[in-house]
Amino acid sequence: MPELRKDPVVGRWVIISTERARRPSDFAGQPVTPAGGPCVFCEGHEAGTPPEILAGRPGGGPPNGPGWTWRVVPNKFPALRIEGELEPAGEGVFDRMNGVGAHEVVIETPEHGASFATLSLDALADVLRAYRERLADLKKDPRFEYVLIFRNHGEAAGASLEHPHSQLIATPIIPAMVAEELAGAARYWELKERCVWCDVVRQEARSRRRVVLEENGFVALAPFAPRFPFETWVLPVRHRAAFEESDPAELRALAALLGEFFRRMGRVLGDPPFNFMLHTSPLRAPALPSFHWHLEIIPKLTRVAGFEWGSGFFINPVPPEDAAEALRAGGG
Amino acid sequence: MPELRKDPVVGRWVIISTERARRPSDFAGQPVTPAGGPCVFCEGHEAGTPPEILAGRPGGGPPNGPGWTWRVVPNKFPALRIEGELEPAGEGVFDRMNGVGAHEVVIETPEHGASFATLSLDALADVLRAYRERLADLKKDPRFEYVLIFRNHGEAAGASLEHPHSQLIATPIIPAMVAEELAGAARYWELKERCVWCDVVRQEARSRRRVVLEENGFVALAPFAPRFPFETWVLPVRHRAAFEESDPAELRALAALLGEFFRRMGRVLGDPPFNFMLHTSPLRAPALPSFHWHLEIIPKLTRVAGFEWGSGFFINPVPPEDAAEALRAGGG
Repeated sequence: MPELRKDPVVGRWVIISTERARRPSDFAGQPVTPAGGPCVFCEGHEAGTPPEILAGRPGGGPPNGPGWTWRVVPNKFPALRIEGELEPAGEGVFDRMNGVGAHEVVIETPEHGASFATLSLDALADVLRAYRERLADLKKDPRFEYVLIFRNHGEAAGASLEHPHSQLIATPIIPAMVAEELAGAARYWELKERCVWCDVVRQEARSRRRVVLEENGFVALAPFAPRFPFETWVLPVRHRAAFEESDPAELRALAALLGEFFRRMGRVLGDPPFNFMLHTSPLRAPALPSFHWHLEIIPKLTRVAGFEWGSGFFINPVPPEDAAEALRAGGG
Repeated sequence: MPELRKDPVVGRWVIISTERARRPSDFAGQPVTPAGGPCVFCEGHEAGTPPEILAGRPGGGPPNGPGWTWRVVPNKFPALRIEGELEPAGEGVFDRMNGVGAHEVVIETPEHGASFATLSLDALADVLRAYRERLADLKKDPRFEYVLIFRNHGEAAGASLEHPHSQLIATPIIPAMVAEELAGAARYWELKERCVWCDVVRQEARSRRRVVLEENGFVALAPFAPRFPFETWVLPVRHRAAFEESDPAELRALAALLGEFFRRMGRVLGDPPFNFMLHTSPLRAPALPSFHWHLEIIPKLTRVAGFEWGSGFFINPVPPEDAAEALRAGGG
């Protein structure tokens, strides 16, 4: 029997429909296999990107040459432009604004064929530190309200370059999905005076049915009402609103958990295309008691079709309890 | 310069970013070419579907055999099940409900290789009449709050069978996307005492820049803040809240406009995969002065990636003015 489940934060309903039930192995599609470099993000090709904003150069050396372990550069084809002041304008019933924002790329490693599953713990922790530093820096720009950090892995997940990289976009508006989470979390706070994610983490820790991994203060779990098969959320166990307030030990613990998670996902689903998105608190409200930062990981295994686009409901053929069990058993 | 645009109904912002601008012909991908039947939806294979709910049999004859021009059948693998009463239940912070609903398929023609672009005006009007009759019938079931009618064309748009068909899913809850439209439209009504879609239609009729087609009381237009390249909305020019209240002449006029629209889209974009979704008023509130039914057509030309999933913002590389111009010129 299919089941309707409601997300406790945003109130989104999903349909867990096992009518066409499949085993995890049925979802293993085309693995994301790099065709091989070198590309514009490879070492020695630094001239092909805009000048770097930040980089890790353990051996020293000048910027925009070889010798780096990670780099942050402006996106060469930015969705938003860094120049200018915000200028809202109307056109009858319509509203527009010039597209001011920042669009940056975090080149995660010089190695073209690496991934979150193969990067060393040090390298992965460096990537997370780069996220934190860019967040802290962009916060100083009063034009921006939010920074969304995300990663597209594989062409089917929207990656146009295969070299390991994540992106960030700073926007002059709090994005709708984050605004919905903030509003839902504020309603929960009003009722309970507790953070809804803290309550979820506590409840899941007791039942364990949807927990994939838990170590050193971080947990990876299958959400109760996932939109997609094998959707997984990673959260700090203790309440933390702003990602940029993580200390080096926390980032290292998170890197360890993420590396292990992506290796398991690779073993169970065969290196699928995926997206992840970091939801942290807005730049101007960093220490909310009701908001808890989290990383949403969505493997790209099914297609979004008319029903989803028209309703906002998602049909998910894999119950999260089954997904979590498969990923727990994928420990190798 | 990129531009941020806000949808006047739901307040969704999109980024119109022409940095990677392309011509319409750059979007023409793999045309959706049927591999050829016969399939379970073809004439003579009626035993392969559940027994029909409704059909057009101009020459008479018994149900579930040949001689039909269109059929409505239950989906063999339904996302929701028709049996049972609604039973909400809690699990700590979580809420669930049994998956009661209806999931039906409208087989639009016996012809395996036909499409909305090639169907005769009579056949297309019959499909729309089938939508209306199913809506009117499902309204009688007090368990249902909404019926979403949608169509997936091509594998990339989520179609698992290529034989021309649309689907409907009746749900015990008003879907989130419709609820957002209802709320946005109600806010606009409170402010202006006018329907926001009526205002949009009037404004677009004056400027014409985003109008693709207008004939016999229906208009196809590129929305001001489209999520996707070549996204098009079709609406009745006069205020109409409930699709099922359309009379036969209106359905015939709509069929004529839709046929012409899909032929143009095929010429400009090379028979792309697409979804369409009918947003009509909820079953229990059919005559709202603030809600205007509309059909949203989204060709599947770009990929949805981490930024979209994480933010709810969409990045659209084609300004709707350019899309409308290309589709207007695609008149053949």
